Amino acid sequence: MKRLRIGVLASGGGTNLQAIIDSCERGEVDGDVVVVITNVPNAGAVKRAEEHGIEAYCFPHEGASREQHETDVAECLEKHKVDLVCLAGYLRMLTSDMVERFESRILNTHPALLPSFGGKGMHGIHVHKAVLNYGAKVSGCTIHVVTAEVDGGPIVLQKAVPVLEDDTPESLQERILKEEHKLYPRAIQLFAQEKVKIEGRRARIIET
Amino acid sequence: MKRLRIGVLASGGGTNLQAIIDSCERGEVDGDVVVVITNVPNAGAVKRAEEHGIEAYCFPHEGASREQHETDVAECLEKHKVDLVCLAGYLRMLTSDMVERFESRILNTHPALLPSFGGKGMHGIHVHKAVLNYGAKVSGCTIHVVTAEVDGGPIVLQKAVPVLEDDTPESLQERILKEEHKLYPRAIQLFAQEKVKIEGRRARIIET
Repeated sequence: MKRLRIGVLASGGGTNLQAIIDSCERGEVDGDVVVVITNVPNAGAVKRAEEHGIEAYCFPHEGASREQHETDVAECLEKHKVDLVCLAGYLRMLTSDMVERFESRILNTHPALLPSFGGKGMHGIHVHKAVLNYGAKVSGCTIHVVTAEVDGGPIVLQKAVPVLEDDTPESLQERILKEEHKLYPRAIQLFAQEKVKIEGRRARIIET
Repeated sequence: MKRLRIGVLASGGGTNLQAIIDSCERGEVDGDVVVVITNVPNAGAVKRAEEHGIEAYCFPHEGASREQHETDVAECLEKHKVDLVCLAGYLRMLTSDMVERFESRILNTHPALLPSFGGKGMHGIHVHKAVLNYGAKVSGCTIHVVTAEVDGGPIVLQKAVPVLEDDTPESLQERILKEEHKLYPRAIQLFAQEKVKIEGRRARIIET
């Protein structure tokens, strides 16, 4: 079976990127991260990519128009013949052009159980603050296909994570991140095995 | 320690009522169901109550004004010196008068992980249809304190339940109901042990 060619877009330290790279290297994902793109100079993600011999590019969004920036990113992904695009803490919204260009081939991770605690402004630590303020007793993470609607695409996998009475936003974030590091590679492997079938807003996992 | 006096409001078959009665009888809840009230004549809940020697009342809402109906229910609960009111498939919205009269002493169960799949119209099988249509991979159940906002009160306990690829609304409902039957008595026991502290919209579970 052909190995999946994975492109990862990251803005920050890149722990999810690292989890994906490690899972590929351990053979848990039948694929390889072939390119890493960041919009933030000196993002930790670039260093991680280089340590694993993966080509890394930085397209700073400052100074570039939104359209030009995305064209640069899309062309870079296509040049590397990427089958699947994985957002891993990528803090730029994608335009509908980009979403159409890679239709049903862009994944994102959200650190809560969508549709709870998703949508505009809900990223990073803000999500976990909202969960604690709401008083939810269960949170989790969601790996979903990216569509034009923020946090609204078909869900591939979700994992519940308990909220503890003495949790801070940071401790909850850390516990959920550990689960994301396992869940994201599992979702990618489902794509590598061609087991994900998008039907409307549902992602069905089919056993082949 | 004083045993908790529990009043249960039910409209249907009363499987959650049965789970609560059984947990009390098994000693898992330091309390007793002292009265069961239904708004539906011939509800299965009445039969279950009678089988366990529990007083049961039917106050049909048809023909009565909303206010009169609730006054009847509230007076019946007070006459039985109820400490905690448990809604178990009770298909009547409570007025804010009722909620104030039993402030922080009314519990409800919702067959999803609030804030997901809650609010107006979200009850019974409609909840599970919405979960499947959305394509969520995790659902569950929520035991929460009732406030004037539908499905919006402080959450006491939540339990995640996986959604399976071949689930129908009915099969998902059944799997979640089984968990509700365990979770609801656990939440009631926390009240019996005075371990629930309401702080704004959060229900903290304190270890005494």
